[in-house]
Amino acid sequence: MLAIWLENQRLTVRDDVPFPQPADGEALVRVIRAGVCSTDIELTRGYYPYTGVLGHEFVGVVERGPDALLGHRVVGEINAVCGRCAHCAAGRTNHCSNRTVLGIVGRNGAFAEHLVLPAENLHVVPDKVSSDEATFVEPLAAALEIQEQVEVAPENRVLVVGDGRLGQLVAQTLVLTGCELLVVGRNRTKLSLLAGRGIATATAGESLSPGFDVVVECTGNPDGFEVAQNFVRPRGTIVLKSTYAGSVSVDAAAVVVNEITLIGSRCGPFAPALELLAEGAVDVAPMIHGRYELRDGIEAVERAAQPGVLKVLIDTGSE
Amino acid sequence: MLAIWLENQRLTVRDDVPFPQPADGEALVRVIRAGVCSTDIELTRGYYPYTGVLGHEFVGVVERGPDALLGHRVVGEINAVCGRCAHCAAGRTNHCSNRTVLGIVGRNGAFAEHLVLPAENLHVVPDKVSSDEATFVEPLAAALEIQEQVEVAPENRVLVVGDGRLGQLVAQTLVLTGCELLVVGRNRTKLSLLAGRGIATATAGESLSPGFDVVVECTGNPDGFEVAQNFVRPRGTIVLKSTYAGSVSVDAAAVVVNEITLIGSRCGPFAPALELLAEGAVDVAPMIHGRYELRDGIEAVERAAQPGVLKVLIDTGSE
Repeated sequence: MLAIWLENQRLTVRDDVPFPQPADGEALVRVIRAGVCSTDIELTRGYYPYTGVLGHEFVGVVERGPDALLGHRVVGEINAVCGRCAHCAAGRTNHCSNRTVLGIVGRNGAFAEHLVLPAENLHVVPDKVSSDEATFVEPLAAALEIQEQVEVAPENRVLVVGDGRLGQLVAQTLVLTGCELLVVGRNRTKLSLLAGRGIATATAGESLSPGFDVVVECTGNPDGFEVAQNFVRPRGTIVLKSTYAGSVSVDAAAVVVNEITLIGSRCGPFAPALELLAEGAVDVAPMIHGRYELRDGIEAVERAAQPGVLKVLIDTGSE
Repeated sequence: MLAIWLENQRLTVRDDVPFPQPADGEALVRVIRAGVCSTDIELTRGYYPYTGVLGHEFVGVVERGPDALLGHRVVGEINAVCGRCAHCAAGRTNHCSNRTVLGIVGRNGAFAEHLVLPAENLHVVPDKVSSDEATFVEPLAAALEIQEQVEVAPENRVLVVGDGRLGQLVAQTLVLTGCELLVVGRNRTKLSLLAGRGIATATAGESLSPGFDVVVECTGNPDGFEVAQNFVRPRGTIVLKSTYAGSVSVDAAAVVVNEITLIGSRCGPFAPALELLAEGAVDVAPMIHGRYELRDGIEAVERAAQPGVLKVLIDTGSE
């Protein structure tokens, strides 16, 4: 099978990747579209020592699996869990001690002709959601995870730091709460996408009034975290949203004296993400900045790593 | 007036500090006992550029102020607030933008014969609470602040990192929740104080099973924070309790992937702290490792900075 393979931080196009065999409870999915995420790029930079097929954002068609899914377009939650460990028992299944994670930990991913996932991870995509849009369900769910963790109300001042792939989706979901939202970023074109949706924006370096109730760090670099620390109010919350190798330096005294809460946020709920797309409440199409065939997947990842580029799709041509 | 003065990170004994004049709404307190806190030591190391009389843990007698307080022994909340700024209006008075803080920010402190504080900051000490015990109300309240911020239930596994002044009080208050508590420290004598109260302890380096729901960092150094990061469970909470100069290095990926919450915690509620002492629910007397006259206050601070030393009291002899 054709796939984009990561090994020792190096990507190769391989046509000899074994065709995946679904285990008990798993479904076989023919991938029709996949998206390149910053985590994919970080993996090629050594964020985590993964070896296997890259990619975890996808939409595909179920070729083997339960009748209810067979032949349907689906998107899939990326954590395949054991259901038996202490975390699973406590309902924290995304933190399962024995989990594999699609294209990230111990499970071949979505930059391939086919993949397997537990059938319970799959969600049928409504007809009115296009395959391009459905590719955004996984990162959109991750954006919605913030609202699972932090209460965001209309009276809250919220700052999103970063206008990239994740910042765009985070901003588009947060604005739906009615909160007083501001996005600060470095790229005028990306910011204008948000401004076009009525979201207030500022360019990095503009003077901002501090005292935000919630600040979401979406840049994935220590500078962004510095901004978050400077602009959150006492007893406010900083949400750390990007996965990347390395550490951030936290001003211990400021965190204690100002009683700041810092909260890490990862995967989120798929059902409301699909709903938002079906309702047209978020608009992802303008974020698509490139489209590549599967055999050109390495170029797709390289393109996604370029400044100014938002979402790059890999189209297997098998829809 | 005699007092211990901090300027340019240097302590001096001064007998020419102006006698404090209470402003409108303030009370004049004759200090009878004061306690040395790690924050005092950090201030002498440049944690914050404070100039003035050091000290913020005290018990004293009201000599001028409202009738209800006059002649009574009192303890005092250390943040003197404006009541008008956005934080005060929002009920976050301890974070008042215009606050002064006793012995820390813009307000002469407790290592002195007299001090002034807003009358509303003062709490009458019940007769059954000794003056030695009452000196612990401020740090005990700070320990209780954790439970204002994080729900701690009997089914929770809680780790306290650090067996010092703050760790002792944090452990003594957390154990009252009925949680499964473990304190890890470096000093067998300090740990044995806690063990004597039925609290489970471990020495640093002993192998611990990870997966704590809540970890409270009370060491005030980056090593302690490292331990906290290693032993908190996914979606668990790390409480950062010590104020000290410098930054801690946070593993960004671990915080995001494991969805850890990190929360800074400072001053807490005085009334329940006084209640715990009145009920005998906590035992602070064994923590007193030294007692100095006010004019020997510099030695008191030096003694408190020595390894193995818990609380050092300054006794003005004016009870």
